Amino acid sequence: MSKLNNLIILSKNADEYRELIEVEKFQNLKIIATATCPEQIASESPCNILFGDSTLVSMVLHKLPDVQWVQTTWAGVEPLLKQGLRRDYLLTNARVVFGPLMSEYVFAYLLLHERRIFQRFESQQKQIWDAAITGSLRGKTIGLLGVGSIGVHLASTAKFFGMHVKGYSRTSRACTDVDQYFQGADLQDFTCGLDYLVNSLPNTSETRHMVNSEMLGWLPSHAIFVNVGRGSTVDESALVTALSKRQIAGAVLDVFEQEPLPQEHVFWKTPNLFITSHTSAPSLPKDLALLFIENYHRYSQNLPLLHLVNFERGY
Amino acid sequence: MSKLNNLIILSKNADEYRELIEVEKFQNLKIIATATCPEQIASESPCNILFGDSTLVSMVLHKLPDVQWVQTTWAGVEPLLKQGLRRDYLLTNARVVFGPLMSEYVFAYLLLHERRIFQRFESQQKQIWDAAITGSLRGKTIGLLGVGSIGVHLASTAKFFGMHVKGYSRTSRACTDVDQYFQGADLQDFTCGLDYLVNSLPNTSETRHMVNSEMLGWLPSHAIFVNVGRGSTVDESALVTALSKRQIAGAVLDVFEQEPLPQEHVFWKTPNLFITSHTSAPSLPKDLALLFIENYHRYSQNLPLLHLVNFERGY
Repeated sequence: MSKLNNLIILSKNADEYRELIEVEKFQNLKIIATATCPEQIASESPCNILFGDSTLVSMVLHKLPDVQWVQTTWAGVEPLLKQGLRRDYLLTNARVVFGPLMSEYVFAYLLLHERRIFQRFESQQKQIWDAAITGSLRGKTIGLLGVGSIGVHLASTAKFFGMHVKGYSRTSRACTDVDQYFQGADLQDFTCGLDYLVNSLPNTSETRHMVNSEMLGWLPSHAIFVNVGRGSTVDESALVTALSKRQIAGAVLDVFEQEPLPQEHVFWKTPNLFITSHTSAPSLPKDLALLFIENYHRYSQNLPLLHLVNFERGY
Repeated sequence: MSKLNNLIILSKNADEYRELIEVEKFQNLKIIATATCPEQIASESPCNILFGDSTLVSMVLHKLPDVQWVQTTWAGVEPLLKQGLRRDYLLTNARVVFGPLMSEYVFAYLLLHERRIFQRFESQQKQIWDAAITGSLRGKTIGLLGVGSIGVHLASTAKFFGMHVKGYSRTSRACTDVDQYFQGADLQDFTCGLDYLVNSLPNTSETRHMVNSEMLGWLPSHAIFVNVGRGSTVDESALVTALSKRQIAGAVLDVFEQEPLPQEHVFWKTPNLFITSHTSAPSLPKDLALLFIENYHRYSQNLPLLHLVNFERGY
């Protein structure tokens, strides 16, 4: 007989998660509380599993000493890495489920660019039959800064569309959809000749301002930069300069050093820039519940958990 | 020893095709003429192979009695099916090469819709942090009206993005990316519940005005219709009504009953409609030359040609 597990769900979507998990009718899993804010959680609740949004989880960890495993609903776990917080539990984040959604976001903008959708719509409004030939992703080169679960999915999508794929990664070498791998000091070789540069690196001390004026200077002038990783990876003022001086053709940003983007930020007025509001990969409760369920199967059978976070590396 | 073949290239891109074919250094293939208009072709030229744009080819066939095989650079072969024209030769059209390009076009607009790119850009211009959640193709249902080489590629792209795929086809049943096949009188079952309806049917007497007010009425009000097949498949005034009364959410049209779209056409002012100018799958000379080369290999070895057109069926 396996032991009884007590789960607390702490998320703005807590009730939806409860429903999705209850469908599974796990015999040994008891949902002892669902809450949308930390204040609703009683101290010393006998909870060994916590499933929730990273920020909310970080606020209750100290009062739940029995927690052995935390599954976050976010990819980002920065709030849980803060100095002074407990690290004596298994932390798993929401990684894989974002790949397909990120691919939709990234390739939506890549195709928008190739197919000149805005320009064609402008022609349409002027009643002009715009017979200008269209571009194509086929044969173009994409550079993936970071080849984690998101980068791997972007690589497969790029291959589906017939692109050449360069990957820059500290550790990954296993993705067969990446045609050429780069690491460390190879950053210039990686960047030169790219049609598209897409960042999906996590926020660590090593990735801070990696996309700076030097790196942007290596890109061809027709290149497009897309950031779905973290705002801190980009030197924002260097990017504004590169866009304003047309050193690169455009950028698509879903993440920023400060979010929401402040009203006075120069990005609002920077040319050839698309801004979205950290919505590239919305956490769909259904997918996140499925991830929790998969990991709970593993947890209850003492199998290795998916997407275990290394507290030292920070991802 | 195989016999000598005499080729005429008749296309607006004739010179580019010549270069691309000459690279192959075929021993028994002689390019006896390249031309961009029919008047440049001498009567009774000893030509047994003709490679060119369908309309141009239709204008010279009568003066080239030795022609045994025509490879068109277009998917459409309507000009060659007109009454009174010769049918005593092998006709192959440009079919396969359009699949990936059509997929780029169709999914560019599907992703544009799901990701609310226009709406988000509008928010950006107003300096609004637009945190509205985004849609996703995953789990949505696409209906493919026509499952030829283009439909098959659309099906594979839809599957890549995690969609459910319904296919309506007279003959095809073989595409494993199609989850449910429909035919004949099943049109209503096929149409009901679709999130996206994409037409890639050829222009035949059977497909004329197939997308009419009745069929549009079966679509859910949030559905989007995309036409990359032929304009004649759509009852254009029924579509204007459906869009104006918001019976469906939008349409994307690359083909029209009359092209270029006349200045006075109501489509220019119809709401929720994207118009492009028959540019969804540009004929890239490189790809079409590769198709000709592949088929020439087959022709010279008496193997079955790819994409042979049945004059009776019309495709």
